Amino acid sequence: MLQPELKQRRDKIRVLMAQRGIDAALIACNVNLIYTYGTVVSGYLYLPLESPARLFVKRPNNITGEHVLPVRKPEQLPELIQECGLPLPKKLMLEGDELSFTEYNRLAACFPEAEVVPCGSSLIRQARSIKTVMEIEIFRRSGVAHAKAYEQIPSVYRPGMTDRQLSIEIERLMRLEGCLGIFRVFGQSMEIFMGSLLAGDNAAAPSPYDFALGGEGLDPSLPGGANGSLLQAGQSLMVDMGGNFYGYMGDMSRVFSIGKLPEKAYAAHQTCLEVQEAIANMAKPGVACEDLYNTAVKMVEEAGFADYFMGVGQKAKFIGHGIGLEINEAPVIAPRMKQELEPGMVFALEPKIVLPGVGPLGIENSWVVTTEGVEKLTVCNEEIIEL
Amino acid sequence: MLQPELKQRRDKIRVLMAQRGIDAALIACNVNLIYTYGTVVSGYLYLPLESPARLFVKRPNNITGEHVLPVRKPEQLPELIQECGLPLPKKLMLEGDELSFTEYNRLAACFPEAEVVPCGSSLIRQARSIKTVMEIEIFRRSGVAHAKAYEQIPSVYRPGMTDRQLSIEIERLMRLEGCLGIFRVFGQSMEIFMGSLLAGDNAAAPSPYDFALGGEGLDPSLPGGANGSLLQAGQSLMVDMGGNFYGYMGDMSRVFSIGKLPEKAYAAHQTCLEVQEAIANMAKPGVACEDLYNTAVKMVEEAGFADYFMGVGQKAKFIGHGIGLEINEAPVIAPRMKQELEPGMVFALEPKIVLPGVGPLGIENSWVVTTEGVEKLTVCNEEIIEL
Repeated sequence: MLQPELKQRRDKIRVLMAQRGIDAALIACNVNLIYTYGTVVSGYLYLPLESPARLFVKRPNNITGEHVLPVRKPEQLPELIQECGLPLPKKLMLEGDELSFTEYNRLAACFPEAEVVPCGSSLIRQARSIKTVMEIEIFRRSGVAHAKAYEQIPSVYRPGMTDRQLSIEIERLMRLEGCLGIFRVFGQSMEIFMGSLLAGDNAAAPSPYDFALGGEGLDPSLPGGANGSLLQAGQSLMVDMGGNFYGYMGDMSRVFSIGKLPEKAYAAHQTCLEVQEAIANMAKPGVACEDLYNTAVKMVEEAGFADYFMGVGQKAKFIGHGIGLEINEAPVIAPRMKQELEPGMVFALEPKIVLPGVGPLGIENSWVVTTEGVEKLTVCNEEIIEL
Repeated sequence: MLQPELKQRRDKIRVLMAQRGIDAALIACNVNLIYTYGTVVSGYLYLPLESPARLFVKRPNNITGEHVLPVRKPEQLPELIQECGLPLPKKLMLEGDELSFTEYNRLAACFPEAEVVPCGSSLIRQARSIKTVMEIEIFRRSGVAHAKAYEQIPSVYRPGMTDRQLSIEIERLMRLEGCLGIFRVFGQSMEIFMGSLLAGDNAAAPSPYDFALGGEGLDPSLPGGANGSLLQAGQSLMVDMGGNFYGYMGDMSRVFSIGKLPEKAYAAHQTCLEVQEAIANMAKPGVACEDLYNTAVKMVEEAGFADYFMGVGQKAKFIGHGIGLEINEAPVIAPRMKQELEPGMVFALEPKIVLPGVGPLGIENSWVVTTEGVEKLTVCNEEIIEL
């Protein structure tokens, strides 16, 4: 990756470090290494406030560069930092939300003279929430590839398929268009394989996670998503695959139907499209996330779909979420979120309704906040497509 | 899952807890919840030494049972434990190797009177390393499904394919045979999507991880595996997909060739098969892992392939590893590993050679340690198959 891009990202982190009196960060987790170094390595990016970053790398063993040094174990770090001519940190931040307790303590113990603070990952997440021009361009390209895969979905459907079988063919389309497959989520406990296809009443099965919709899944070891049911006439189904084409988790959902649906389903879908349009018209820098959420809920209530909005039985408590290297970044469009939109934020907006006896309806797109409003990154037919 | 099976697993953990004077464990990480409760939930399994386990669950909201209670946040746990009629723990173990630093400290702070020890995950990993009869049967069934997918590989190859395209078709075969797709690795830093297909010299590209073979990958955000190269005559390729059919990570690699390979390649492959046979004949309860490793290295040296064994440039320092809910469990078959095999251990044995200008050769199968020896779980043609 281009050095000026990486320097820009590191400087965004440095600004936040300086505000907290932190003079160095030690970055060891994959997404933050991708963000600050451009690739995953086994090792550590040492980011001083006032000097260029250094990469101390265990593996792979073929990385070279002006500020790259080999390391075998973290206990060598203080000596290596001093060999670079850098002072040892006084206040060092580590990724407290992502490093394991054991690993955090091991790293902290390497710097007995320093005050070690665990704010690393939340601070870096704050920096990451405002995307650079290059990151937005990556999202734009991802959106095109994502849409191209979804446009081919009708061509892989065959009557008599199960939700699992159709999901597998869509996963293949995504992969052929360049999707890397890996689905990165902040917080170690949420696991999902590529994304989900939810058909009929399976969309109402509650999830262990705070996901918009759940799904029973195929095995107790991986709840969520398709459950192996036959796709049947009169059912709606929603495809919600992670659009990780270049490391960034684009997000897009589209609804399909097996034959015709009851009138109420089209009305519910239309309500979600209208919510999306209202939010998109309202969203711009300075607007609080809770105002977007409250507007959506009010519209859905007026349309008579409140009981089915964002799930039934167990409901998700948001209608949108920031996206980036992980699927769940800042901001969150949820009740009581005072955070305001800023230019460069990228988020998914997903007003969704589950109708018992029919299935999931609604829409999800990825959006970038511009200086005046928002721009849609995932452009693709938004109507219910009959299979 | 059957309660007697879960009780058996919990009791295996309790035996190790008792040895360390631990009177309760709080289990919050997915693989350990699958192990002790049978499914992933958002919540906590509280495991006292002397009383039945309790599940305190946040999501999904539809779990009920004799020992299941809803919980909103971990700070409620002490009160809920006492409401169950249980004493508060004196020495409580948490999953220090898996919980984030922040989450560990939050949970520990809920029990200010207790001595909190971070040995949870390593202790549970020790219990998990000896599989139950049911777990071994799950591995056996996984091996059959895994082999069935691999047997179809020649039917999806087309001349002119890239390694990426062939990999996608194999991923689809795996999914159609029931593979859940998710690839679970212990240690938060190792990421891989489903598995790898390595062809030609890409197999020699070093990995950020301690994997047997690397591969450049398709994007710097996900190094490892196929790199988009055209498959060419005279190349070998190795398929190494994770066989997670029912939550357990079966492991199997097979080699294919595009047309004929140089004679040396067949000799290298044969050496790996002979190493496998020698190790399988030698492996039984009481044999130390290092002895297996050293035997393999000696055979490979005598055959003249030492420079290419387990990678070139960057080599993996093991020839096998325990498998279970994660791909990298105990034991590790590596130098200086005094640990002895025990009945019920399940491991992958993967003697592999990378020949520059040709590609990867060798074999990988999953094995269970029986009372007398070892049994192969992944039965499928082991010769180089010409595509």
